[in-house]
Amino acid sequence: MTRTAGELADYLGASLTGDRGANISGVASPEEASAEDLVYIDSPRHTDRAAKSRAACILAKPGTGIAGKALLAVPDPKLAFAKAAAWLLPASKPSAGIHPTAVVAASATIAKTAALGPYVVIEEGAQVGSGSWIEAFCFVGAGARVGEGCRLHPRVTLYANAQLRDRVEVHSGVVIGGDGFGYVFGEGRHWKFPQVGGVEISDDVEIGVNTAVDRGSLGNTRIGAGTKIDNLVQVAHNVEVGEHTILVSQVGISGSSRIGNYVVVAGQAGFGDHTIVEDKAIVGGQAGILPGKTIRAGEIVWGTPARPFKRFKEQFAHLSQLPELASRVRALEQKTGEKSGEKAEKKVV
Amino acid sequence: MTRTAGELADYLGASLTGDRGANISGVASPEEASAEDLVYIDSPRHTDRAAKSRAACILAKPGTGIAGKALLAVPDPKLAFAKAAAWLLPASKPSAGIHPTAVVAASATIAKTAALGPYVVIEEGAQVGSGSWIEAFCFVGAGARVGEGCRLHPRVTLYANAQLRDRVEVHSGVVIGGDGFGYVFGEGRHWKFPQVGGVEISDDVEIGVNTAVDRGSLGNTRIGAGTKIDNLVQVAHNVEVGEHTILVSQVGISGSSRIGNYVVVAGQAGFGDHTIVEDKAIVGGQAGILPGKTIRAGEIVWGTPARPFKRFKEQFAHLSQLPELASRVRALEQKTGEKSGEKAEKKVV
Amino acid sequence: MTRTAGELADYLGASLTGDRGANISGVASPEEASAEDLVYIDSPRHTDRAAKSRAACILAKPGTGIAGKALLAVPDPKLAFAKAAAWLLPASKPSAGIHPTAVVAASATIAKTAALGPYVVIEEGAQVGSGSWIEAFCFVGAGARVGEGCRLHPRVTLYANAQLRDRVEVHSGVVIGGDGFGYVFGEGRHWKFPQVGGVEISDDVEIGVNTAVDRGSLGNTRIGAGTKIDNLVQVAHNVEVGEHTILVSQVGISGSSRIGNYVVVAGQAGFGDHTIVEDKAIVGGQAGILPGKTIRAGEIVWGTPARPFKRFKEQFAHLSQLPELASRVRALEQKTGEKSGEKAEKKVV
Repeated sequence: MTRTAGELADYLGASLTGDRGANISGVASPEEASAEDLVYIDSPRHTDRAAKSRAACILAKPGTGIAGKALLAVPDPKLAFAKAAAWLLPASKPSAGIHPTAVVAASATIAKTAALGPYVVIEEGAQVGSGSWIEAFCFVGAGARVGEGCRLHPRVTLYANAQLRDRVEVHSGVVIGGDGFGYVFGEGRHWKFPQVGGVEISDDVEIGVNTAVDRGSLGNTRIGAGTKIDNLVQVAHNVEVGEHTILVSQVGISGSSRIGNYVVVAGQAGFGDHTIVEDKAIVGGQAGILPGKTIRAGEIVWGTPARPFKRFKEQFAHLSQLPELASRVRALEQKTGEKSGEKAEKKVV
Repeated sequence: MTRTAGELADYLGASLTGDRGANISGVASPEEASAEDLVYIDSPRHTDRAAKSRAACILAKPGTGIAGKALLAVPDPKLAFAKAAAWLLPASKPSAGIHPTAVVAASATIAKTAALGPYVVIEEGAQVGSGSWIEAFCFVGAGARVGEGCRLHPRVTLYANAQLRDRVEVHSGVVIGGDGFGYVFGEGRHWKFPQVGGVEISDDVEIGVNTAVDRGSLGNTRIGAGTKIDNLVQVAHNVEVGEHTILVSQVGISGSSRIGNYVVVAGQAGFGDHTIVEDKAIVGGQAGILPGKTIRAGEIVWGTPARPFKRFKEQFAHLSQLPELASRVRALEQKTGEKSGEKAEKKVV
Repeated sequence: MTRTAGELADYLGASLTGDRGANISGVASPEEASAEDLVYIDSPRHTDRAAKSRAACILAKPGTGIAGKALLAVPDPKLAFAKAAAWLLPASKPSAGIHPTAVVAASATIAKTAALGPYVVIEEGAQVGSGSWIEAFCFVGAGARVGEGCRLHPRVTLYANAQLRDRVEVHSGVVIGGDGFGYVFGEGRHWKFPQVGGVEISDDVEIGVNTAVDRGSLGNTRIGAGTKIDNLVQVAHNVEVGEHTILVSQVGISGSSRIGNYVVVAGQAGFGDHTIVEDKAIVGGQAGILPGKTIRAGEIVWGTPARPFKRFKEQFAHLSQLPELASRVRALEQKTGEKSGEKAEKKVV
């Protein structure tokens, strides 16, 4: 919708310099903006980019001066930009109702204000809350529950009894509630350990494309409120992820691990089973946490096996100089008349 | 279904102490059990948990004593628990028949006892065996074959001619028989190498959410009987995986690799093409096997490039002490009057 | 279709020895070929395999002699084999038309020669070009565009406004145009950064099973012509991948990275955000490129953090001998009477 610079300043609590009446109807980068797009700059280094932009209205830190633009001064322009975008560009939303091709079990409960797209399947006893939007080809298993204001993009599978609270957004290809990967070996084969637990996704969680969140084996798998999960992530059975935590793409978390609140896990990191990551820890990309290990609150870890980032850097710097260190040891051996213990270098890779 | 402790003891070959008539209708952890849930403990350390549980019936090792409970003594309580669960909780099963919305080609063969859910598509010449359950949105390509007693959860794709033997369970989002990733570079572009081979999944295989198993290029891709594959795993063209092998989540196996029987591959491990992993080997999480390498039978390997676990541990311990080792070399250089060869530490990360 | 050896020689520009009239109707490996299958050998080492094959017609390098076979001599037999396969085995293709179960918005434009399978959903304003084949359960979002001669295998999702040019092949489970993973942290929670950019897939791109390519946040995500992407790959928002580049399975590319032309990225490699990989670089399997780093044109890198392959090999060789190096330092300390600085080895894994 279109707002004025003045309305936006009021909404954001920003201090406005320039034309209060300038219209704003979208968001863009400075280079791609039209006159009505809002843009932001985070640093005075980008003042030129904003000055050259066609955008009439700029979000920037206090003290930024750009002639001929409406300037909205805020302490965190990127944050204000995200808030402004959510306000200016409300999510597209179909009209409520059930597409005639949807197959809805008689015992399912669909709120009147929910929207079900074509070829949605809702099984016995499932519930869909008010204002939720279930897009094409979604499968909501028996007894599963979708809260209020949720959005399931096309092709999401909720296994039986999966529970989603409110304002959960689930992207295409996600599967919530698949069986955990647990077997007991005996008599020459793998027997499936019972996978009869639940899975609960709390308020305001977003889950990216083709991610898998398994149900618990006996207990539950839980994702805390406000946590954001990227594409192609694996969350195994009985994992508990806290609130406002970030799991970047292709992260894998093994069974019964507990990830705290405000944790950041970078891409492709992997966790053995029964790991513990305390609040506000940061796990580097491709790091590997050994089974049963604990990462302390606020700690930053890297590498496989994961170790404190400072220690990793120090070791890696020394590793980089290892060929030189070996030469120095050789020189010492020659000087002291020690017979060299050096072997021929093996071809290893 | 509900059984008595006595019936369960007979089924498991367990030695029973206590009330033969106690009813058992489910399985649970000691903490979450109701009176009719079966629980197990693997070790005397957990005796207290079982004693405090509401469960009336406990699986435990011989010699475990808990007052007031029916005790089923077995050598491997966890294995017995898995078997008991499979017996007490038979998989849910719809009534046989084809949902009116399923699109089934005239030349497809569907067993009378099979169940096809809503919006299933079965193409020309495909076969579905007796007792198999194909859930919503599954696609069974032309000439593909699903054996007896299989279950395809919602949204499984079988490309044309994919072959599943009996009692195969395939989770939501799995794709079996996609084209292998093979190209020949020439004249400035990549030409697709023909991907015309097959894919065969043997008896009792289970495949987790969103996993991909490609067809062979000229030959076949094969998964052996009893092998279990977790979520988001990649099995490339012409790979052969043996029997009763475990592939944990996000493992990637490149083309023409051969993985033996009873192998365990931990999460996120990766295999170059034409690797060989012999029977009963164990590959650690995030390990990387170089193209063409062989892992010997029973070997345990770790790291990238993968090496024997013992060697990995030794190297890693020394790596951890590398900063100290460098200091010791510096001390030796000072003592012997050798000019230090040390360079300033480079910033590397 | 069936061709003669002579026709094939003409098509490939090959020099033919033997029966010009031999029929060829398929391709196979030497071991599995029937008389009418074309086979190839790349090296004189495989002459025996070809000689023993039932195949009547062999592609080989000039100078190869095999009695009783029609020999097609070409400088690159594997490339010729790939071209021959494409010529002999044209992709299966349904007759044009829209399956009666497809749900096509009134404002969508579907070319007359396009084929839409069962349960396809095409939303408002979307376009499907001539000769394109959209298989079962595909979702083409509002305003999305599929060019000419494309093939979407079953269960592909194109989010709104995703753009595919011509002859793009997309495998089952792929999602193109999902929201990028961008948030701004403030006031104790993550605010979604606007994900309103586009995604463009150029001519002749192939995308493997369950891969995710996100839309841009403000700008666009772009995949260049002729690039081939394997299964389960993650391409984040605003990434630009050049032409004729190869991304092997489970690779992950973080936001705003730029990958050049003719680059090869091996399996499970990961890229931090804002990385740059110049043309013809090669990134090894499981390598990790740190955020903001640049890989120079033609460079071969390995490891995490990624470094030149030669350097990686050298370091790794020294790492393998680190236990011995430590022993040598100990020996020097004993010889010189230096107090050993050695600590007890810590158990680290």
